[in-house]
Parts: sequence; C-alpha cells; structure tokens
Amino acid sequence: MENLYIGLDVGGMSIKAGLVTENGSIVYKSTRKTNALEGGPGVLLQDMKELIREHTKYAKAHGYAVKGIGFGIPGVVNNEKGTIDYACNLGVENLNLRSYLSDLHLPICLSNDASVACLGEERFGAAKEYDNVVMLTLGTGVGGGVVIDDKLFEGVEGKGTELGHMTIVVDGEQCSCGRKGCFETYASASALLRMTKSEMIKNRHSMMRDYSNRSLEEVNGLTSFECAKKGDVSAQIVIDTYVKYLSEGILNMCNIFRPQVILLGGGISNQGDYLVDKVVKYCEERNYGYKNTPKVEIRVATLKNDAGIVGAACLAMDYVKELENK
Amino acid sequence: MENLYIGLDVGGMSIKAGLVTENGSIVYKSTRKTNALEGGPGVLLQDMKELIREHTKYAKAHGYAVKGIGFGIPGVVNNEKGTIDYACNLGVENLNLRSYLSDLHLPICLSNDASVACLGEERFGAAKEYDNVVMLTLGTGVGGGVVIDDKLFEGVEGKGTELGHMTIVVDGEQCSCGRKGCFETYASASALLRMTKSEMIKNRHSMMRDYSNRSLEEVNGLTSFECAKKGDVSAQIVIDTYVKYLSEGILNMCNIFRPQVILLGGGISNQGDYLVDKVVKYCEERNYGYKNTPKVEIRVATLKNDAGIVGAACLAMDYVKELENK
Repeated sequence: MENLYIGLDVGGMSIKAGLVTENGSIVYKSTRKTNALEGGPGVLLQDMKELIREHTKYAKAHGYAVKGIGFGIPGVVNNEKGTIDYACNLGVENLNLRSYLSDLHLPICLSNDASVACLGEERFGAAKEYDNVVMLTLGTGVGGGVVIDDKLFEGVEGKGTELGHMTIVVDGEQCSCGRKGCFETYASASALLRMTKSEMIKNRHSMMRDYSNRSLEEVNGLTSFECAKKGDVSAQIVIDTYVKYLSEGILNMCNIFRPQVILLGGGISNQGDYLVDKVVKYCEERNYGYKNTPKVEIRVATLKNDAGIVGAACLAMDYVKELENK
Repeated sequence: MENLYIGLDVGGMSIKAGLVTENGSIVYKSTRKTNALEGGPGVLLQDMKELIREHTKYAKAHGYAVKGIGFGIPGVVNNEKGTIDYACNLGVENLNLRSYLSDLHLPICLSNDASVACLGEERFGAAKEYDNVVMLTLGTGVGGGVVIDDKLFEGVEGKGTELGHMTIVVDGEQCSCGRKGCFETYASASALLRMTKSEMIKNRHSMMRDYSNRSLEEVNGLTSFECAKKGDVSAQIVIDTYVKYLSEGILNMCNIFRPQVILLGGGISNQGDYLVDKVVKYCEERNYGYKNTPKVEIRVATLKNDAGIVGAACLAMDYVKELENK
C-alpha cells in the first residue's frame, strides 16, 4: 500500500488540497471556495475538514494509506504547538489547528505558505538538484522561505524567514508591519504599482498612460512590464528601479545565507527570463566577494499553483519521519 | 586520557592558541606575535605551526590527547577544502591550510572568525542555555555568526553569514565590498567614528571637541559614548543615530533568523548595558509581529578575548564528531 500525504494550501478565498506521493506526484486534488473573512474561523475549519475527508475517502477507495497532513498558511504560525497565531487574510488569530483536527488521528503540521512553497520547489521543483535554497514570493507582499541542507529552516516556533520584513532602506516607505523601508515595500507587486503610478504622474508622455486608458485605477502589475517591452522609456525606468531594489534584497540573501539558488515565485515571477536576466546582471556586477565566492543561481519557481500543495505534503513527510525517529 | 582540541584565533598582528577541553575550559594558552602582511604567508604558516607544536608538546607532557585543530580566520574561507580564500588583514589568498598542516596527522578545520566566536559563545559563553544564536561583532567592520539548532550555520562553502554586508540603506554609504549602504557602514566602530566627526564639525559647542583636544585625529570609539554619558546633547545625537542603525540591522536578524538571542561582540560591545538598553528599547518599539512573536534577547558576549580560541576548538570538536560519524 503506497503512502500518501495530504497537502493543503490555505488562502482567504479558496483552499487547495492534494494527495501527494513520496515522489512528489499529485494523485488527486481539488479546490474548495471559502470566505474566511466573512464566514469566520468556524467556516474555514469546517471547509478544511471536509476537504480532508474527501481526500482520505479517495485514498481509501484507491488503496492508498494517508500518513499525515501538512498546511501552508498565509500568516504567522507556531509550528511547535500547531497553531495559527495570526493570519489577517484568514481573519484568524490564536487558532489551534492541531487540536481541532485531533479526531482525524493523523499527524498534523503547518508552516508559513512561502516556507512550504520553498520546500516543495527544493524537493520536486525548480531547485530539485539543490539542498540549500532561498525562495522569495513576489505578490501583494514578499514572502520568504529557506531550506538549509535539505531541511526547512523556520526559526524559533517557525517565526523566522520573514524575508519581506528586512529593512533595506532605513526611514524608507512605510510598511504594514510598523517598520519603514522593508524589502516588501520595494519588491512586492504593490510596490511595483506604486512605482508605476508615480512615474505615470511624473511623465505626461508615458506610454503607460494610454495602456491603462488614462486611469490610474486600471494600472496593474503588467502595465510597466508590457510598456517597457514595447520600448517605452518611462516604463523602463520603473522596471529598472524595481529590479534594483529586488536585486539589492537578493544580494542580501546571497551574503546572509549563501544558498545554491534563489527562487522567485508569485505573480511578478511570471515575467520569467525578462525579469531574471535583469536581476542576474545587476547582481553579478555587485556580488560581495564574487571573485572567490560560489555563484548563487537565480531561477523562477516551476511548481506554480501546485507549489503549496506539494510543499505542504513535503512538510508532512518530514514531520512524520521526525515523529518516527523520536 | 582526556581529549583536548587546539583552537587558534588568527589575526594580522598576533595568533592566539589554546588547549580546550570538551567542557570548554582552556587548560593552556599562549599568544605569538606575527606580522602577516610584512612577513607573507610563509611566516604566518610557520608561526601557526610552531604554536601548534608548543601546544601538542604541552598536551603530551600533561597526559592529554589532542584530537583536532580549529582555526578562526579573519576573512573568507572554504571550509570544505580547508582553504583561506581571501583574508586582506593577513595578506593571504588561496592558501590551503589543511594540506599545509597534513603532516600533523590531525583533523584540521577552519571558519570565519565571527562564526567561530558565535559557536564558542553558544556552547560555553553568553548563550550557553540556547541553541539558536546570532552574533554580531562590532569592530572595524561588522562580522556575523549564526548557530541553528546547536550547529554552526555557514552557507555554501562557509561563505554565508556575512551579516555586515546586508544593505540596510540602498544607495547609502560606500562599503569596501563594492556595494553601498551595508550594515557595516552604519554599525561598525568606523561608522561610529564617522558619525562622531561629522557631528563635531557641525556643532561648535559639542563637548566632544574638548574631549578630543580639538583634534579630529584624537577622536576614537569612546568619544561619543563618554560625552553622551556626561550629558552632552551632540554626543547623544551621535549615539542615538548609531543605536538606530544598529537596531535596524538587529531587527532584520530577528525577522530573518528569529533566534533565541542576539549577541553583541567586538570593541563597541564593551559599552555593555548602556548600549544594550538603548537597543532593546528601540527594538521593542518596532519588533515585527511582536504581539505573537517570541522575544529575541539581546546580550553582550562574555568570552571576550577567549571567544576565538574556545570557538575554534568547538569547531574542531564538531568536525571530529562529523568525521567519526561518516
């Protein structure tokens, strides 16, 4: 009987779940719409439980054994206690997931969503040939995940690797966390939008004005990229500025963790080589101790929408192994 | 027969060595003056070898067994190959220490000096009750060491944890590494000197002028601290500025590593509680996710001049254990 692990990728609008083999293949998956903020924690928990039941039922019917369940949570967790300590997009605070699911009699583990995605990519995605990986998810915010020697590194209680909340400009842009100048306020999709709008206001001849129908409300994460590719100088200024700040944060990751590879995920990473080539060029010109220092590769993540499911299942695999070794 | 480890703390002007027990006690130590820059790598290596011979001789005469030798190097090493890749204060580049010392028939390992100091403090110093520690050495530059789960973390080839070369001000002060705005350019003793002089030039009534005999050349790392303690407002401005940048870097370490404790070493850490209290106050007001996030203690390192010797010996202990487990 083949062993499977259930991975859950929890979001504010939907929960994705999948049955994952020890080789990282998804044998079954499904998505459930939810509305955590409106429904409250009770509805969210109910939705999770029903998804898990659906998957265990499928596993049983097809002769698989479910060995554990892993969660990727968009927020701050306590991986020792199995609690979600704070997740504003889920409207959840101090929720003990492990004890709520204790009636399933299965090992339950959880981590931050970016950490889980990093683990999935390291085991079965863009970094599968490496053991030391840093991942940055460039979305509304900037999430961070770190794998050291094939093991997820999370800091005390799983509260570390908040890589988006590393200040790169003291006294810089205000961050939602309370500090100023966090990496997230310069390298997130939201930061790119701010830079795009600012340049459009400054430059009356910007192609980005027509592209967004002369309305700042129609500006999105593609505006500057699309116009820059068409040769618009003002859009290129935006991209160069964005690349500079993103690369400065990436260089910090090189000097702090010196991993084998840094992966970029999240919406902005869909720009692929167009983005990566610019970042690599910036970094190669400025890499600390580059001469005698091993090069850090920069790649786009490849598991895309499945990263959370696969990564959460990997988390469960490691957790089950850890329990067995105790 | 008790097992001992030789720890060497290598500097440009002197090499310190000691025989260390598995409990972290130094049973014998001595220092040898050297002049690596004038004498060249040959003299440095000769001095190291003679110090090691002196220590092995002492160990033999007193019935101890030497099991391994560890080095703390002020520069960039390759801990896999056992080489010093670049150490400007030693005038050394691409030097294979392990093969040079192969005739000793003892396990040889090396790491960066700040990493070694962190390991020593974690095992037998200011953080001996903890397993997850970040250390910052505030000297001419800013060195960094990280211990995760009681194990020294160093990045690929030992080239990581260059915590002084994390940019905290994009486009900020020029750093010797080529980048701009590195933590080191705001939190080192050299940075404090720059801030002190700048304030003295700006403020004609600064007490720091008399304190340094109206000569910028007599300004040192104590000038601002001593005058601030005596109530000089201009000196207090310098200290507040220094504390702000140091604390911003420390908050980054909290968010990136979320260790149990952050240790401060190096000359500036001799300010003790006067410095730590200000840093703690700044950090407590700004700690990301503070509400549900475990507090990170901030302490001054305690092994002082012995940190390098003890830490290098700990490195050797771990290396020998690793070889035995292979």
